[in-house]
Amino acid sequence: MQAKKPQESLVIMNELVFPNDTNMMHNLMGGRLLYWMDIAAAMSAQKHSNRLVVTASVDNVSFEKSIKLGDAVTIEAKVTRAFNKSMEVRLDVWAQNIPAGGKEKSNQAYYTFVALDDDGKPVAVPEIEPENEEEKLLFDEALRRRQLRLILSGRMEPNDATELKALFMAAKHEL
Amino acid sequence: MQAKKPQESLVIMNELVFPNDTNMMHNLMGGRLLYWMDIAAAMSAQKHSNRLVVTASVDNVSFEKSIKLGDAVTIEAKVTRAFNKSMEVRLDVWAQNIPAGGKEKSNQAYYTFVALDDDGKPVAVPEIEPENEEEKLLFDEALRRRQLRLILSGRMEPNDATELKALFMAAKHEL
Amino acid sequence: MQAKKPQESLVIMNELVFPNDTNMMHNLMGGRLLYWMDIAAAMSAQKHSNRLVVTASVDNVSFEKSIKLGDAVTIEAKVTRAFNKSMEVRLDVWAQNIPAGGKEKSNQAYYTFVALDDDGKPVAVPEIEPENEEEKLLFDEALRRRQLRLILSGRMEPNDATELKALFMAAKHEL
Amino acid sequence: MQAKKPQESLVIMNELVFPNDTNMMHNLMGGRLLYWMDIAAAMSAQKHSNRLVVTASVDNVSFEKSIKLGDAVTIEAKVTRAFNKSMEVRLDVWAQNIPAGGKEKSNQAYYTFVALDDDGKPVAVPEIEPENEEEKLLFDEALRRRQLRLILSGRMEPNDATELKALFMAAKHEL
Amino acid sequence: MQAKKPQESLVIMNELVFPNDTNMMHNLMGGRLLYWMDIAAAMSAQKHSNRLVVTASVDNVSFEKSIKLGDAVTIEAKVTRAFNKSMEVRLDVWAQNIPAGGKEKSNQAYYTFVALDDDGKPVAVPEIEPENEEEKLLFDEALRRRQLRLILSGRMEPNDATELKALFMAAKHEL
Amino acid sequence: MQAKKPQESLVIMNELVFPNDTNMMHNLMGGRLLYWMDIAAAMSAQKHSNRLVVTASVDNVSFEKSIKLGDAVTIEAKVTRAFNKSMEVRLDVWAQNIPAGGKEKSNQAYYTFVALDDDGKPVAVPEIEPENEEEKLLFDEALRRRQLRLILSGRMEPNDATELKALFMAAKHEL
Repeated sequence: MQAKKPQESLVIMNELVFPNDTNMMHNLMGGRLLYWMDIAAAMSAQKHSNRLVVTASVDNVSFEKSIKLGDAVTIEAKVTRAFNKSMEVRLDVWAQNIPAGGKEKSNQAYYTFVALDDDGKPVAVPEIEPENEEEKLLFDEALRRRQLRLILSGRMEPNDATELKALFMAAKHEL
Repeated sequence: MQAKKPQESLVIMNELVFPNDTNMMHNLMGGRLLYWMDIAAAMSAQKHSNRLVVTASVDNVSFEKSIKLGDAVTIEAKVTRAFNKSMEVRLDVWAQNIPAGGKEKSNQAYYTFVALDDDGKPVAVPEIEPENEEEKLLFDEALRRRQLRLILSGRMEPNDATELKALFMAAKHEL
Repeated sequence: MQAKKPQESLVIMNELVFPNDTNMMHNLMGGRLLYWMDIAAAMSAQKHSNRLVVTASVDNVSFEKSIKLGDAVTIEAKVTRAFNKSMEVRLDVWAQNIPAGGKEKSNQAYYTFVALDDDGKPVAVPEIEPENEEEKLLFDEALRRRQLRLILSGRMEPNDATELKALFMAAKHEL
Repeated sequence: MQAKKPQESLVIMNELVFPNDTNMMHNLMGGRLLYWMDIAAAMSAQKHSNRLVVTASVDNVSFEKSIKLGDAVTIEAKVTRAFNKSMEVRLDVWAQNIPAGGKEKSNQAYYTFVALDDDGKPVAVPEIEPENEEEKLLFDEALRRRQLRLILSGRMEPNDATELKALFMAAKHEL
Repeated sequence: MQAKKPQESLVIMNELVFPNDTNMMHNLMGGRLLYWMDIAAAMSAQKHSNRLVVTASVDNVSFEKSIKLGDAVTIEAKVTRAFNKSMEVRLDVWAQNIPAGGKEKSNQAYYTFVALDDDGKPVAVPEIEPENEEEKLLFDEALRRRQLRLILSGRMEPNDATELKALFMAAKHEL
Repeated sequence: MQAKKPQESLVIMNELVFPNDTNMMHNLMGGRLLYWMDIAAAMSAQKHSNRLVVTASVDNVSFEKSIKLGDAVTIEAKVTRAFNKSMEVRLDVWAQNIPAGGKEKSNQAYYTFVALDDDGKPVAVPEIEPENEEEKLLFDEALRRRQLRLILSGRMEPNDATELKALFMAAKHEL
């Protein structure tokens, strides 16, 4: 199976925030954004694997700025690394009141997906071959994020998470 | 402001999985579940704070078992701990093919919310007074989860996360 | 087939009222509430019968208080009595502006369902064994409500509705 | 205020049954039909009163035939009688698998609505002047249905329901 | 196959404009109206052909008046002419703020559909036999509209569009 | 007001086809695609004008290939030309069964929008400065499409449509 480039799995999604997507303060509900991000990420994972996929996990997501009714939400999704039968997808989200201009970064996140064969069984996916510095960094750090996922879901002892321990010594922002 | 008990913020939500909630394998999409969990958790945080609330973050969520078209999804949400103007809500999710019986735990998660006053500014919320052993454990561990959130969003140096470091030495399952 | 208790079919549903659920006065539309009640009641009837079910009828429902945009609606559903292949489900509905507090009873209703086997044919369901006074009352009165349904759908002569006639002599509230 | 004819409030609605409207047997859910009927009836009551309206009640509805995925549902709504500030709307529902032909009556129902002025207070509506035999019959029987509603919602003693008692002596089908 | 009258395919649809159907100025979005028109027209084409149908094209649609939140939208659809395996459906749309009265013509449009047999292959449909002057005019002009469609989709040379050329000499309004 | 480039208004939208978007043959309904295209085009027109916009018209759209349940639909929208207070947006639509690969062009269309100021009145928008050959061609042909729109909506005599007449002599594909 031939390795693929992150760019080949790029998915761009634009959504307008409608009344039913908002809470009583006319802000986009966090859960609706998580729903859109899941769809964008699933399309990206499908593109990389040429398979049907199911969501395996979502990493910690922070919502720091509120997104308003009528704003346009732009979601970019790209596979960062493949792990045999699963893939990590990085999502970047921007919000924009288009008439006012001023697109602002809203948040980022990592979703993971498992690829399935025609019988619904997990199946191997192509590896990722990062092309530029940013993609290489995301590729390398994917190991640490994976260890954190394994610990958080009780499938790895913190003690065995060598990559993550190194990270604990590293600069902030990069977990 | 009088402290409140976790039980006072209990919210139970039951949803049937309809066709539009599912992917091509007739499984509930992860993003749809994250959306329902956000609504259940928001109602719970509203109940604790008697305020409007906005989602501040969702912690790592794993989807280990698939939930099928027609299943009933039960979500229970309860505030575990308050931090001045924010609250952590624990969610437990079960899925059940009712005719077949056999309700199964699907997953759990933690969402955090900020309470807002009438001008939309963050506002203090009552403290939590845990009543039983399980609630006390969730209350204590909330500190570690909070440190992890702060690190992951770049607002705390790993080095300063004393609670989390202790956890790294602790048994699995409990991060 | 072993009789079951009403409590075994209890379903609790919580829904937030979103903009698209409301009319021009920002009140929950009656039809949307009837839709939610149908889903809650169907889950309850499924739980009692461990079968797929179809709605057979809804009894008279009054909407006395308006429910507002942003309110939380709580619906509790429980089977009151089984009639061979059909079941009556009692629904109680409350509405709450959570920040303001003050949960208020909105209305109650009775839906009936028919259980279906794997070929889609009506099939027998377990009997109900009421446990407390309230459940026994609902169980007894179910006969009268059934007679009214049969008369209203033209399948029984008013003259033959002995239970209902007795009721016509009884105190109000209890039809 | 000039009396109006039932025909002036006629509303015809056609809906296709989509996947999300159906249960696991691919039949239209009863609750979804009740929702559509509420919208059709509200438009009819608005037309009669030239006011915003809110649903006051729905009478007993039976679902005798299943409606399938892909069927066209036709709903006709018409005001039968006005009672000072409220109106009764009669609904007739047909279902049709259009390619197969053979439109079939599905069910009928009565919804009542209250008209509201610009401050949201109940306000008087025009009377109904029935034009043909069928409209006159519906107009006359509306009194009995109203008494049943009042008894069922605990606002009238069965003993005082003179119209309804007469009905109890009458032929079936007509309650 | 017996010819059918336009009246036999008449479909009337009434929709209320809900918040999620509107843009930031509380006007019905054009795309939502195009969606409703497609459903109404598909039902009409199904009625004429007694077949499942798929949308083949929509002609130029202008939106001249804005339709507001809470308005009732009335769509009438009727087949104007059949072309072997396809049908042209004429749609007329009115909008009405019912409390204010004053139903206004919003716009009209032509959708075309192809009828499909049980294997999903295009299949012949009955001819149309117009009954009155208006139907005859629509029937005759359908040829010109068809030529314009064929030119616009690159399947006919402008030079060969004899009907359309004649029209170019004709009075306005009638293309 | 400074002229802007088409590229500045580029909007890319990706949607997955869910069950409720499809007809009985599991194909995307034409009306649902027209709805998505309207949203993508509205975002593009907002980006060009930095104003709220309303749909003024959609040109003839043909649906030549069916799009299936589960396919990813990619819509690209870009302003081709501005006319004082209105803008023409070109849309290109592709469909892809991602696991199978093989993205296919589905169709293209032109929507026009009017920009509105804060009082909801039409307002002038920047001109378009095409950058490459394709954009220049779309810019030039926009005049003809506009004349056709004006004729079709009865606001121009065919006789006065000088650009369009020239086109009638021109090669196919380009109307």
